[in-house]
Amino acid sequence: MKALIIDKVGHPAKWTDVDMPVEKVGYSIIRLTASALNHRDVWITKGMYPGIKEGVILGSDGVGEIDGRSVIINPGLYWGDNERVQSDKFEVLGLPQNGTFAEYISISDEYIYDQPTHMGMEESAALPLAGLTAYRVLISRCDARSGDRVLVTGAGGGVSQFVIQFAVALGCEVYVTSSSDEKIDRAVSLGAKSGYNYREDEWYKNVDAKFDVIIDSAGGDGFQHLIKLCNPGARIGFYGATLGKYQNLNPQILFWRQISILGSTMGSDRDFQDMLTFVSTHKIKPILDRTYRLEEAHLAFQRMESGDQFGKIVLIH
Amino acid sequence: MKALIIDKVGHPAKWTDVDMPVEKVGYSIIRLTASALNHRDVWITKGMYPGIKEGVILGSDGVGEIDGRSVIINPGLYWGDNERVQSDKFEVLGLPQNGTFAEYISISDEYIYDQPTHMGMEESAALPLAGLTAYRVLISRCDARSGDRVLVTGAGGGVSQFVIQFAVALGCEVYVTSSSDEKIDRAVSLGAKSGYNYREDEWYKNVDAKFDVIIDSAGGDGFQHLIKLCNPGARIGFYGATLGKYQNLNPQILFWRQISILGSTMGSDRDFQDMLTFVSTHKIKPILDRTYRLEEAHLAFQRMESGDQFGKIVLIH
Repeated sequence: MKALIIDKVGHPAKWTDVDMPVEKVGYSIIRLTASALNHRDVWITKGMYPGIKEGVILGSDGVGEIDGRSVIINPGLYWGDNERVQSDKFEVLGLPQNGTFAEYISISDEYIYDQPTHMGMEESAALPLAGLTAYRVLISRCDARSGDRVLVTGAGGGVSQFVIQFAVALGCEVYVTSSSDEKIDRAVSLGAKSGYNYREDEWYKNVDAKFDVIIDSAGGDGFQHLIKLCNPGARIGFYGATLGKYQNLNPQILFWRQISILGSTMGSDRDFQDMLTFVSTHKIKPILDRTYRLEEAHLAFQRMESGDQFGKIVLIH
Repeated sequence: MKALIIDKVGHPAKWTDVDMPVEKVGYSIIRLTASALNHRDVWITKGMYPGIKEGVILGSDGVGEIDGRSVIINPGLYWGDNERVQSDKFEVLGLPQNGTFAEYISISDEYIYDQPTHMGMEESAALPLAGLTAYRVLISRCDARSGDRVLVTGAGGGVSQFVIQFAVALGCEVYVTSSSDEKIDRAVSLGAKSGYNYREDEWYKNVDAKFDVIIDSAGGDGFQHLIKLCNPGARIGFYGATLGKYQNLNPQILFWRQISILGSTMGSDRDFQDMLTFVSTHKIKPILDRTYRLEEAHLAFQRMESGDQFGKIVLIH
C-alpha cells in the first residue's frame, strides 16, 4: 500500500510503498478514507520531537471503514486507568506506532469508535486529536460551565477552534486573542463575542471584564497578564506553551482569588468518548481550512507551516 | 472589659479597657477562654495589612463558653455560597470586625461550633485559622489521598504543621523542608518520614522520589524546582508566598505531567465543619509552642516574630 513515512530525520516525509499491515488478534485493519494534519506531524518531520523513528507512517487523525462500518480512531494510546494523568506507556498515534497517513491501518479495537453521523468523513477526520485535547482542557480540567466568561488565546490554532466551539456550545461567553483581526472575525463567526489583537501593546488593559476560564497555548512572558484577567475562582488551562517559560507570576493574586493553573495534554479514553457524545449532542462540526489528496500531503504540510490556516487541514485518501 | 487593640498603626497592640459587646439578634456573646496568634496579627500591628482600622480588637482564633457550652469560632466570615472561592464580602475575624484577644466577643451564630471534645481549650484555640487553611489547601483543593507522597515546605509554620498532621492522618507519606534540622526532627515526631534542609545548595537534587502533592507557602525563585519534583498528576497547593513571584516555570513539565497549581486561602463554612469532623475522627491535637496570659500578649508577639516557634502560640484568658 501507499503511505507517508518519515524517511530521514529532518527531511520531508516521503510518499512511498510500504507493506500492508498484518491481521492480529484484538486488532482491526481499517481502510482509511480521510486524515488530518496536526502540528505534531510537522514537528516530527523537522526532527523537533522526541523518539523519532525512521520508517514510521505519520498521522494521528483518521477515519475509515471496516466492513462498511464508518469508524473514527482515538489517537491517544495506552492512557491507562488514571483519569488524572496518562500512564508512562502513553503514546500518540503516528509515532512510534504507524499512523493514519496511509491506505490502511491496523489498530487495537479499543481505539475504534463509530464515526459521528451529523457530519461528513472530512469533518470527522479533523476531530480526533484536537477535539480530544480541547475537550479535556476546557471541560475535564477547567470544568467550564454555562455562563462562564471564557478567553481563548491564539484563535487560529487547531485546538483553540474546538475550544471556542465547545465553549459556545456549553453556553459560555467566549472571547479570543489573535495576532490577526481576520482570525478574530472568524472566531466571532463561530460564536465568540469579540476578541483582542495581541499585537497591540498592552492589549490586556483593554479587557473590561474578567474571565472564569482561560485556555492558553502560548505561555511565555504574556502568561503573567492572563492571571490578572482572572475572576475569583478562575481556572487557567493550557496544553502547550510555544513562547516558553512562565515568568513573574503573582502568587498573591493566585491564592487570594483561588485560581487554578491546570496543565493538560491529549485526553483519556473516557474524554474521547465524552467528546464524541458532546459533539454529536451539540451537532458541532469541525472547521476545515483546506483539503488535499493524501498523495499531495507535502502541500498540506506547507499550508500548516505558513500559519495562515484557520481550521483543520484534511487529507482525502 | 479588657482587650488587645490596634491603638496606632505601626505601634504595638495595646492592652486596654473597651466597651462590652452589645446583645444583637442572631449573635451570641462568648466569654472567651483562650485564643491563639497568627502571623496576620503580627502583620496588622506592623501596618503590613490592607484596611487597618484603629481601635479594632485583634485576634482570629478563639474558644470560649456560652451558658456552659464550650464553643469554637470559625474565623472566616461571609464566605458565601460558592465553594470554589470566597465572596467579595469575605473577611477574616479580627479586622475589620473585633476579634478574639478580649474577654468577650459578639459573633454571628453561624460561626459558632461545638469545641472538639478530645482536646483541651488551649489546643482547641490553636485550631481555627491555621487548621482551616491547612484543610482546604491539602484536602479540598489538592485532594490528598492515602498513599500519596506529600511534600510540605517550611515545616515550622502554623499552617504547615496542620498540613503535616492532616496528611499523616490521611495515610500519606509525608516529607518536609525546613531551614532548621531541629524543625525537621519535630516534623518527623509528628509522623513525617524525613526532611530536607533548604539551606543546603540544590537540596532538591537529593530528593530520590517525586511527590503527588506539594504544599508551599514560600513561592519565589525556589518554586520552579518544586515543579520538577512533581509526579504525573501532581497537585501543588499554596496559601502564601513569602519569597514573592514565581519565575522560570517550565510549562512542558506542567502540561505533560498534567500538574495542577492551586491557589488557596482560608476556607469555606463547609471546609470548617469538615475540618472539625476530620480532627475529631483522627483525634488530631494541635502542637502548641508556648502559652502566655492574654495580658502578656506582647511576649507572645515577640515569640512569633523571633521565628523560633514550632507550633501555635496560645493566649490564656
